[in-house]
Amino acid sequence: MSDRFSPELVQSLVAAIAARAGVRQPDAAILAEALVDADVHGTSTHGVSRVNIYMRRIQKGLIEPRAKLVIERRRGGTLAVDAGNGLGQVQAVRTLEKLIPKAKKYGVAAATIRNSQHFGALSFYCNQAAAQDMVLFAMTSCEPAMSPEGGCQAFFGTNPIAASFPTGKGFPVKIDLATSIVARGNIIAAQKRGQPIPPGWALTADGEPTTDAAAALAGTVLTMAGHKGYALTLMVEIFSSVLSGAAVGPAIGSMYKHLDRKQDVGHFFCLFDIAAFMDPAEFKRRLDRAIDGIKSCRKRPGVTEILVPGERSHQKAQENLAQGIPLDEATRNELKTLCEELGVEFTL
Amino acid sequence: MSDRFSPELVQSLVAAIAARAGVRQPDAAILAEALVDADVHGTSTHGVSRVNIYMRRIQKGLIEPRAKLVIERRRGGTLAVDAGNGLGQVQAVRTLEKLIPKAKKYGVAAATIRNSQHFGALSFYCNQAAAQDMVLFAMTSCEPAMSPEGGCQAFFGTNPIAASFPTGKGFPVKIDLATSIVARGNIIAAQKRGQPIPPGWALTADGEPTTDAAAALAGTVLTMAGHKGYALTLMVEIFSSVLSGAAVGPAIGSMYKHLDRKQDVGHFFCLFDIAAFMDPAEFKRRLDRAIDGIKSCRKRPGVTEILVPGERSHQKAQENLAQGIPLDEATRNELKTLCEELGVEFTL
Repeated sequence: MSDRFSPELVQSLVAAIAARAGVRQPDAAILAEALVDADVHGTSTHGVSRVNIYMRRIQKGLIEPRAKLVIERRRGGTLAVDAGNGLGQVQAVRTLEKLIPKAKKYGVAAATIRNSQHFGALSFYCNQAAAQDMVLFAMTSCEPAMSPEGGCQAFFGTNPIAASFPTGKGFPVKIDLATSIVARGNIIAAQKRGQPIPPGWALTADGEPTTDAAAALAGTVLTMAGHKGYALTLMVEIFSSVLSGAAVGPAIGSMYKHLDRKQDVGHFFCLFDIAAFMDPAEFKRRLDRAIDGIKSCRKRPGVTEILVPGERSHQKAQENLAQGIPLDEATRNELKTLCEELGVEFTL
Repeated sequence: MSDRFSPELVQSLVAAIAARAGVRQPDAAILAEALVDADVHGTSTHGVSRVNIYMRRIQKGLIEPRAKLVIERRRGGTLAVDAGNGLGQVQAVRTLEKLIPKAKKYGVAAATIRNSQHFGALSFYCNQAAAQDMVLFAMTSCEPAMSPEGGCQAFFGTNPIAASFPTGKGFPVKIDLATSIVARGNIIAAQKRGQPIPPGWALTADGEPTTDAAAALAGTVLTMAGHKGYALTLMVEIFSSVLSGAAVGPAIGSMYKHLDRKQDVGHFFCLFDIAAFMDPAEFKRRLDRAIDGIKSCRKRPGVTEILVPGERSHQKAQENLAQGIPLDEATRNELKTLCEELGVEFTL
């Protein structure tokens, strides 16, 4: 059962836990903000439910809680970053902070980040850029889940692509999509409910199509749109992992399964200053007109409203900010145990 | 029926036709090279079959054959370009030429291009960058064909995304995909053959699923992967058309249908210098190892080989360079008529 809690309260608690686990105070605040932001926007899979595994990995020495950001190569518009096996969210925010003045100066700036971890929802970083009239195009590799087209062995992660764009509508257009046909979490959820999954989602380990959730979890998730998704996920892998110097494909460690080695995930950020191309106010007017055009398209039978990406998660955020974020019992129990172990007052 | 012709011969002929239609000699050479390159790589839909419509649009004053490239905004790493309603291929190559020194200097460089046209296959530009140890990430808006998810009115083009990456394998990894579930050309071909199309490709004008090719052509092509493709195609539209100042959505002119107004297509280029992030030789070794890993994945039943994107088109290019490029009779007849009208010797 999920109860609702004040985002500020949860954020303070998570920051306190992380700080007691060895994360520097300002970094703990960044981590807590990123995780709670995911819960606020309705993507709890990338939210506070991850605190436990991050802290466990710190305790096992698999994440370096006080890692520095090391710049390995630098040009006017670019950085090649070694995240030092630090927390993904912290190192990503630190990298973005360094890219912003570069993009303001040169119009565009890009960074590869290697030696990182799972770093939550890409749109957290993209929305920060949009709030400053910039566009962050972001990608990341992930632990293996998908096969190349024609194969049936996990090679690629669900490798997402994201970008957010400022509008005059009160919310950014938020593109944030895994290149898999479906999040692996949906298959896990179907298994828990004892239900089959729709055809076309997954293959067994032998490469046969399956609607059995357990067989799917032992096999591979399919790429979105077949060979097109394969091409996109490969693009993400090359920018994020090959170009950054991170682990590639099956060499990327699994956050939950591999409790004996680091993940070595790679990320790729490219940041554009809108003003380098167009007056930001004009950009927003133009995008607002595009949104109006999209929403006034003739609708398919049974459809009452056409939404733009980011609209639903904005509505969800308004609701969660007003009513509190839902946290399920398992997550609350994990936080409580962490508090007891670390000597933090459990405030939920 | 398609006969085969020497690529050099066809390229000379196309360049001669374009020059006599008013295109400057060096620009005519660029156009001919871009079109023949598409035929060489087996994407004849973006090749010499387009010469006729481009020349007809020049003759009608709908394309400016001698347009200059006007830089409207400029920073160290960025350009906002007005293509002056010139030939898309020419203005894109000219823009790429300007981005290369910027990316060499700053590590990354980006350009918006407005007031352009259909400019053929994105991979032509991306492969040029890859040959110089750079990565060009390219997008373009296109004339309307697809609806936003939930709608049934053509708003977006089939808005492609592309990037090519150099390898040590003798061919670049070439990502180049429309965000539609299928190229509209496949539906036109089914109609010509009098055959139905597979379910899931298209909707009627009323938004009902259809397998009737004619009804599909009167309706809309579906985005790849439903709402995910919608999000991606919107991203392409925003970078290429909203940010560039080009026409957006249904305001983009149709190359064949609108013989009374310009297209005003927008493109977006972002160019990365690999050496800004990693030694290019190491990058290629790493990508080669990734390719080897992909190709050695366990195969699905009935699959004999796992290919990487770009491999098949490279094989096709080898074949076409050795045996000549196939040109169908309709295209040959169009070229012949153009030659007669313009006083160019028809050499095929």
